[in-house]
Amino acid sequence: MNLPEAGELLAKEAARYTAMGWMRGSSGNLSVRLRDEPLRLAVTASGLDKGELTAADVVEIDSSGAAVGPGVPSAEAGLHARIAAVSGARAVVHVHVHAPVLAAERWPDGVQLRDMEMLKGFGRSAHDDLVTIPVVPNSQDMVVLGDSFEAGHRADTPALIVARHGLYVWGADLTQARHRTECLEWLLRFIMAV
Amino acid sequence: MNLPEAGELLAKEAARYTAMGWMRGSSGNLSVRLRDEPLRLAVTASGLDKGELTAADVVEIDSSGAAVGPGVPSAEAGLHARIAAVSGARAVVHVHVHAPVLAAERWPDGVQLRDMEMLKGFGRSAHDDLVTIPVVPNSQDMVVLGDSFEAGHRADTPALIVARHGLYVWGADLTQARHRTECLEWLLRFIMAV
Amino acid sequence: MNLPEAGELLAKEAARYTAMGWMRGSSGNLSVRLRDEPLRLAVTASGLDKGELTAADVVEIDSSGAAVGPGVPSAEAGLHARIAAVSGARAVVHVHVHAPVLAAERWPDGVQLRDMEMLKGFGRSAHDDLVTIPVVPNSQDMVVLGDSFEAGHRADTPALIVARHGLYVWGADLTQARHRTECLEWLLRFIMAV
Amino acid sequence: MNLPEAGELLAKEAARYTAMGWMRGSSGNLSVRLRDEPLRLAVTASGLDKGELTAADVVEIDSSGAAVGPGVPSAEAGLHARIAAVSGARAVVHVHVHAPVLAAERWPDGVQLRDMEMLKGFGRSAHDDLVTIPVVPNSQDMVVLGDSFEAGHRADTPALIVARHGLYVWGADLTQARHRTECLEWLLRFIMAV
Repeated sequence: MNLPEAGELLAKEAARYTAMGWMRGSSGNLSVRLRDEPLRLAVTASGLDKGELTAADVVEIDSSGAAVGPGVPSAEAGLHARIAAVSGARAVVHVHVHAPVLAAERWPDGVQLRDMEMLKGFGRSAHDDLVTIPVVPNSQDMVVLGDSFEAGHRADTPALIVARHGLYVWGADLTQARHRTECLEWLLRFIMAV
Repeated sequence: MNLPEAGELLAKEAARYTAMGWMRGSSGNLSVRLRDEPLRLAVTASGLDKGELTAADVVEIDSSGAAVGPGVPSAEAGLHARIAAVSGARAVVHVHVHAPVLAAERWPDGVQLRDMEMLKGFGRSAHDDLVTIPVVPNSQDMVVLGDSFEAGHRADTPALIVARHGLYVWGADLTQARHRTECLEWLLRFIMAV
Repeated sequence: MNLPEAGELLAKEAARYTAMGWMRGSSGNLSVRLRDEPLRLAVTASGLDKGELTAADVVEIDSSGAAVGPGVPSAEAGLHARIAAVSGARAVVHVHVHAPVLAAERWPDGVQLRDMEMLKGFGRSAHDDLVTIPVVPNSQDMVVLGDSFEAGHRADTPALIVARHGLYVWGADLTQARHRTECLEWLLRFIMAV
Repeated sequence: MNLPEAGELLAKEAARYTAMGWMRGSSGNLSVRLRDEPLRLAVTASGLDKGELTAADVVEIDSSGAAVGPGVPSAEAGLHARIAAVSGARAVVHVHVHAPVLAAERWPDGVQLRDMEMLKGFGRSAHDDLVTIPVVPNSQDMVVLGDSFEAGHRADTPALIVARHGLYVWGADLTQARHRTECLEWLLRFIMAV
């Protein structure tokens, strides 16, 4: 995938999340992998309304989250790159949706889910499979956040909640990452309501 | 109705449920009866985003839920076929909407509804008519689920809640099944809020 | 206004309420006054999906709610006609939205509202003006419902909650009735959440 | 910016807020600065459905909120003008969304927010920065409301909650004001749910 193709996909996905109310203000950001060696991601540009992105509102970044080429990446680009590098993900979604942030207030040491059909849409089993979504404290330092992420990372759990901030979910492409995001949000909303 | 016609209807209905947030990820599935003897259903294909289905994203299945012709049916095709065979329904809706799953946590032996105008939209009476929506435990085995369904089936109650999973509703066509689904969801949301 | 013009307006309004989730299934109905002497209303036809009405899905009724001309009016046409006759309203909205039905469970003798800016959008004052929305028991007999309505009717309170059923709101035209409906729903949702 | 340009922007923004359910009935209003000396604002016209505004549904007002030219401004035009004059804002948003009104009931002396990432979208810091959103009593007298606003105004807090009424948020342009509105609403909904 080249940068313009990535930009078009990211704009389309961002519009969808915005319509769901998950990217209020200019919050949240999305990325997709452009190349493996060296690692290069396309990430949404900073500060823009995520419902109005065009294919040009995208920035190429390296494994540290620094821009390679024109444009200003999202402040959180460094965490996108870290997640992609550690997990092997080819797409990373970061949205400011309420349920994970509320769940992290209640379960600051990790949010446990089990025995729900929707776990299949997150890539796990619907029965007898305890899933713990890691929760890490918020920080403005992407290296600190990245270290917290990596310390709790498990290959079978493609999500991270940043407390008082939002949710990261990743996958093999933007569609899989979105499906996992939607299923996890459903599950978190469910356990907050039970 | 032939398979392409069914595919077009199913895609349109699925887009509507997706817009309501009832088919998050690639969850849920819809079916419509193609033929009576032998029983044949058209069911939505597996694993796709239900908001982006085309008329071609449909699979013909037999009474066991096995594919007859190309394509991979939803894993739950076997339950669709069982419901159609037992109830005589010509359309079956399965959605992952919150209210029934929350209600099943509170009333695992069946969810009772009565004396609500919206029951008319579910095909029952608004007064002095106790309606019990059956709840069955979740399973990955469609024969087990189908047996649980059949054990609790009553001809006047066209719905089934699968605990920690989702809702099935059926009717004479996709429109009637949708109207019943919408009215039942309204009722379940209501009794959870009272 | 003639019947086709009324049908077009009603279809457009019904699509708007449906998109808000206030006319689930085929629930709810709308009417607009066609003539004063003798009283004639145009009311939405029965049993149809309210998001898919066309200008032809309308029935002319008399002051008893009986059809004058072709088509089957909504079962609740008699209450529309009674409300129009008693209040002088030129448009009546009936929607199955949750907040009024929940409020009626909590306050079955009438729902009191006061000191809220949104009351201005309902045609009352934002300060020192106690507004009581009447609540009547549900019935399938429109004469019984109409008598209950008339017994509690006050010219300054253009709304009625039918318990375990839904909300009626009226006004000088469909736009005013909608604005009043939206403001009242906001207020009822508010007092349930405080 | 001239008045027709302002009218077009305001209509587009108002349609967006209406779709979110934040301008129910004909509630809420928006303004944008046209000129500094003397102060002139373009404000949405009074009493119209905010989802159906055209570029012509706009009124030019002076620093007292009085119309300069044709049209009837929103009743709250005087508060828009006062906020613009005191804060230097170039755009002011007033919406009737639930979360701030509910928060004002719970915290009538001001709503405190801190240590949330979304505060960055409101123009503050995500850490160690106590933000207090002022709450003032409702009034129909824009001078009284304006005095209450000015008494509690701080340059770093571009928002005001009018109790039992709604929310005001302002910024350098309509987009910034919208982003701040969306982020603040997210935060207020969050603290009501925790």
